Amino acid sequence: MTSRQNAGEPLSQFIHGLPPELGGLSFVDSAPDFALAEQADLFFLAVPHGTAAPYAVVLREAGKMVVDLSADFRTTDPTVYREFYGQDHPAPSLLSEVVYGLPEIHRERLKSARLIAAPGCFPTSIILPLAPFLRQPSPIKPYSIVATSLSGVSGAGRKLETRLLFGEITDNMYAYGVPKHRHLGEIEQELSLAAGQNVTITFVPHLVPMHRGMLTTITAEFDRVLASFPITDADVFNMLQEAYGQEPFVEVLPPGQMPEVRHVVNSNRIQIAARVDDRKNRLMLFSSLDNLGKGNASQAIQAANLASGLDEKLGLE
Amino acid sequence: MTSRQNAGEPLSQFIHGLPPELGGLSFVDSAPDFALAEQADLFFLAVPHGTAAPYAVVLREAGKMVVDLSADFRTTDPTVYREFYGQDHPAPSLLSEVVYGLPEIHRERLKSARLIAAPGCFPTSIILPLAPFLRQPSPIKPYSIVATSLSGVSGAGRKLETRLLFGEITDNMYAYGVPKHRHLGEIEQELSLAAGQNVTITFVPHLVPMHRGMLTTITAEFDRVLASFPITDADVFNMLQEAYGQEPFVEVLPPGQMPEVRHVVNSNRIQIAARVDDRKNRLMLFSSLDNLGKGNASQAIQAANLASGLDEKLGLE
Amino acid sequence: MTSRQNAGEPLSQFIHGLPPELGGLSFVDSAPDFALAEQADLFFLAVPHGTAAPYAVVLREAGKMVVDLSADFRTTDPTVYREFYGQDHPAPSLLSEVVYGLPEIHRERLKSARLIAAPGCFPTSIILPLAPFLRQPSPIKPYSIVATSLSGVSGAGRKLETRLLFGEITDNMYAYGVPKHRHLGEIEQELSLAAGQNVTITFVPHLVPMHRGMLTTITAEFDRVLASFPITDADVFNMLQEAYGQEPFVEVLPPGQMPEVRHVVNSNRIQIAARVDDRKNRLMLFSSLDNLGKGNASQAIQAANLASGLDEKLGLE
Amino acid sequence: MTSRQNAGEPLSQFIHGLPPELGGLSFVDSAPDFALAEQADLFFLAVPHGTAAPYAVVLREAGKMVVDLSADFRTTDPTVYREFYGQDHPAPSLLSEVVYGLPEIHRERLKSARLIAAPGCFPTSIILPLAPFLRQPSPIKPYSIVATSLSGVSGAGRKLETRLLFGEITDNMYAYGVPKHRHLGEIEQELSLAAGQNVTITFVPHLVPMHRGMLTTITAEFDRVLASFPITDADVFNMLQEAYGQEPFVEVLPPGQMPEVRHVVNSNRIQIAARVDDRKNRLMLFSSLDNLGKGNASQAIQAANLASGLDEKLGLE
Repeated sequence: MTSRQNAGEPLSQFIHGLPPELGGLSFVDSAPDFALAEQADLFFLAVPHGTAAPYAVVLREAGKMVVDLSADFRTTDPTVYREFYGQDHPAPSLLSEVVYGLPEIHRERLKSARLIAAPGCFPTSIILPLAPFLRQPSPIKPYSIVATSLSGVSGAGRKLETRLLFGEITDNMYAYGVPKHRHLGEIEQELSLAAGQNVTITFVPHLVPMHRGMLTTITAEFDRVLASFPITDADVFNMLQEAYGQEPFVEVLPPGQMPEVRHVVNSNRIQIAARVDDRKNRLMLFSSLDNLGKGNASQAIQAANLASGLDEKLGLE
Repeated sequence: MTSRQNAGEPLSQFIHGLPPELGGLSFVDSAPDFALAEQADLFFLAVPHGTAAPYAVVLREAGKMVVDLSADFRTTDPTVYREFYGQDHPAPSLLSEVVYGLPEIHRERLKSARLIAAPGCFPTSIILPLAPFLRQPSPIKPYSIVATSLSGVSGAGRKLETRLLFGEITDNMYAYGVPKHRHLGEIEQELSLAAGQNVTITFVPHLVPMHRGMLTTITAEFDRVLASFPITDADVFNMLQEAYGQEPFVEVLPPGQMPEVRHVVNSNRIQIAARVDDRKNRLMLFSSLDNLGKGNASQAIQAANLASGLDEKLGLE
Repeated sequence: MTSRQNAGEPLSQFIHGLPPELGGLSFVDSAPDFALAEQADLFFLAVPHGTAAPYAVVLREAGKMVVDLSADFRTTDPTVYREFYGQDHPAPSLLSEVVYGLPEIHRERLKSARLIAAPGCFPTSIILPLAPFLRQPSPIKPYSIVATSLSGVSGAGRKLETRLLFGEITDNMYAYGVPKHRHLGEIEQELSLAAGQNVTITFVPHLVPMHRGMLTTITAEFDRVLASFPITDADVFNMLQEAYGQEPFVEVLPPGQMPEVRHVVNSNRIQIAARVDDRKNRLMLFSSLDNLGKGNASQAIQAANLASGLDEKLGLE
Repeated sequence: MTSRQNAGEPLSQFIHGLPPELGGLSFVDSAPDFALAEQADLFFLAVPHGTAAPYAVVLREAGKMVVDLSADFRTTDPTVYREFYGQDHPAPSLLSEVVYGLPEIHRERLKSARLIAAPGCFPTSIILPLAPFLRQPSPIKPYSIVATSLSGVSGAGRKLETRLLFGEITDNMYAYGVPKHRHLGEIEQELSLAAGQNVTITFVPHLVPMHRGMLTTITAEFDRVLASFPITDADVFNMLQEAYGQEPFVEVLPPGQMPEVRHVVNSNRIQIAARVDDRKNRLMLFSSLDNLGKGNASQAIQAANLASGLDEKLGLE
């Protein structure tokens, strides 16, 4: 565990309730000489985008496995990176070996991955519900997709910014980042991959007054021809169940139940439900997850388990 | 102020900080003989739907002005009432004189109204942003409208239900009431009125962990021909500004600002902003209000002021 | 797992994320014929006081081990039960075999216990910090003790009461239950036991707007003679460390650190710190725990582990 | 309204819902040449301690009335300032004309005050409940006083500090600043003044997860001789009522009611209640206020009204 600011200090001073076998560890300096590359076989990078890539370069040169929790390797097309992050990709030579760390979508490729781009909370909460409905033959019109996400504050990290003060967030909420939030690039990349065609969507993130948790609501029009043959709540439930029924961390909810944040907080699980809006001929999708669980950190462990040949549930139940 | 449970007890025992001139008032029994009709000229009904209508009948027969905060008179078509509330309308003979209590939409009719149906928070937060864009010639496709609302708990009233306990709501959120929430009837009635044609929408309400406040996000496709002539953020701001620039309780936010709940809580104001999603050819609308302010109670006072020939801002600034 | 209301229904419908081996379980009827006594060797009673005792009688007659999470067996003197609960003790014949379920205080007796009274959050948060300072020779004046506790809502259980609605608690707080909260009986029983003399205290519980968590602050005057020999923060830290240094679930914080709720939530741990107020010659004690963790449910498991001859940490790390 | 950072920008960009007559105002630069002294007769200083005093010097030299909301003038003894703030008093020559801005205690002196030190939330919530019980002949032992305060985050101001982030405070609480919080100096100054003798107390502030609001609980032993003549809840209520019955912003609660934060938030009121702990021979006092209301900002207006010869309730009802 690295830290520049607290190098040399014991973890136990910052993290309470550590198991005894970790109680003696101290923070290691994350100095730029990367001497730390000698100290382990697998590295998780939990630093801002732009900062992560240089670490990844050194670590990959040293032959280490890297799981990057930043956005640096999530879009494998450098022009998309430039479009959304306003700068050239910091390590384009590594892009060809990146695997996007969504186990439910890329499990086979993750098993041999050496550089994993761990998705964040918005992409996970949108891609997993939508993917089964985009695969051909798709029952929905891709261009009609509108995704609305409500995010707890932990989605923004632990930055020292005025907008993240308690007094700014409690009893408050607002939409932001429209119409082109930074994470749209990776979301649309993965949706396009699932659909086998280019998919763009409307995406509206909202900040809500809670710490950990995300709720996403997605609507899309059913393709007209299919709608003339009625589609029921049971049908769309079955499509999800077929896609995710064997997944250890996806809970597909039957008709009548809706995802809630309290059911997934502090876990690596995502809840997904589908409903039919027959008045408007639309599919409705709902998902809930923990921003710091399936929404990023614990999902990164799930991906690392796969890449390491371990039980993918190790440490996550 | 009536109460069956607390009849005879002083208001000051339940409401702290009353001004001295109200400090001596006690709760009056709201017994079914309606003797209370003798005691005032203007009555606010703050009881559940189904319960309100019988009071309204007696009070209107006695020639009193009635502002009903329940849903009993919001849909003036009794078949819509039956569709959404599952029972026959309890007072169909009164429906012809109802005025829907949105001052920005029905100000002239409110000035002579005797029976006002005060809208709730969902309709106010959806109708006001959308109405200017539905009037002919409309730049959007009405059938494409998707409205997502995030509601604080006060929107549900102060009912004794398990789902409203603190432990069920804090650190939690979920969507509910899809695809056909009860308030869709009145929402679509007013949107159709604005559009001059039948409008139905997809509506997804969410419960979020706060007490007072609502945030609504609406998307709609621009009509193709219009979109070929670019529409900018400034254009849609101007359309809102033209509609509401003179309204005392509507704050149209310029491009770059987004509605927030903390800016409207404890007030009779609604914030509205419009943005263009040019990647997807969609209009985005955002609004924030206080469920107990512009979302119901104080807006009812605004309507009553109009109907009483008073300054509509009386008691609301 | 029993339930009258939901008997026969699967647990997984109410509890999300159950491990697969529990996924198939259903609620068993807790009917009064107690046929359920045949179905297990160890029973946890999580029902209101007064309701628990009759179950305990039947189960103890059947030779089963019982861990009661209610208050029915926490005070072993039936006159104290009558004083605090206003009724005769419902099962006085069982009182002689009760062991109070605080492992740090009664570990040896718990190892052979058959009827365990699991303490609640207030007693645990007060008794554990104070006990080491009450043992003879005590450095404090027992009559001077003042304990102030701040409790999250889960301390009150999941009752359907108006005062527990979200709208009543968010952004609110208040003291209650003074001067004689029901839990004072068991608190003073255990403090007297530690002191070897009768101890009564002033206790002020407060409700604060959070779900899980308790913070307790205790002050007591130092005995004058001892105070003439200075006592330092290091001294009082050492007294706690000597008492609890080997305890797996007690974290004694060194001078400069203070207990926080976020450090113990979702755990079976309690944090304790001691400070000297040398301006006022007083000892200050602070503790934090999770009402549903060390404050009741998981501590009951710790006690049951001990009584069952298992590793007391089983299932709690 | 001054601001260095936002000088020249309209207030309406930062403060929503301003009445029209203020809508046109812009922030004025608070540059150190104090040219602003020409622009008004009355100045409120809402800057950190140490920063306020130099402004006060210039403004008082220019003959202006000054209400300082910082701590710079709250303790009129410069040695106490040095003790609690670790530096020499920045303007000792002004101390002789300071009036402590608690209207209920210093109303007569405030009427002719030119330099007012507006108290903060901790002192107001402690001094007002205690003062009537300290005046001679006092029924309590002053050395036995223990005050515990629970503060919402707004008590700390809107500083950009990690400990004030939403993620650090929600679902969390802790005690801090013991045994010698900075505000003890002014608290003990005013308590000593009320008692006519030197009074020191034990004071434990706590941070709780809410924005606006403070709850204070105080205990003190009754003097033994008086206690031999029983004191009842009615007696201590009457003592408060006698002291504050005519005060427009003090609500003394009768036996059976306890102060709550929701009853005073967004107001200039303080609720106070007294109870007798006859098991322990102690007086219990409780108060609630809004940190930004009676706890500082609006109370400063109340004091300024008095000093300006205006109705002291102006703008506060």
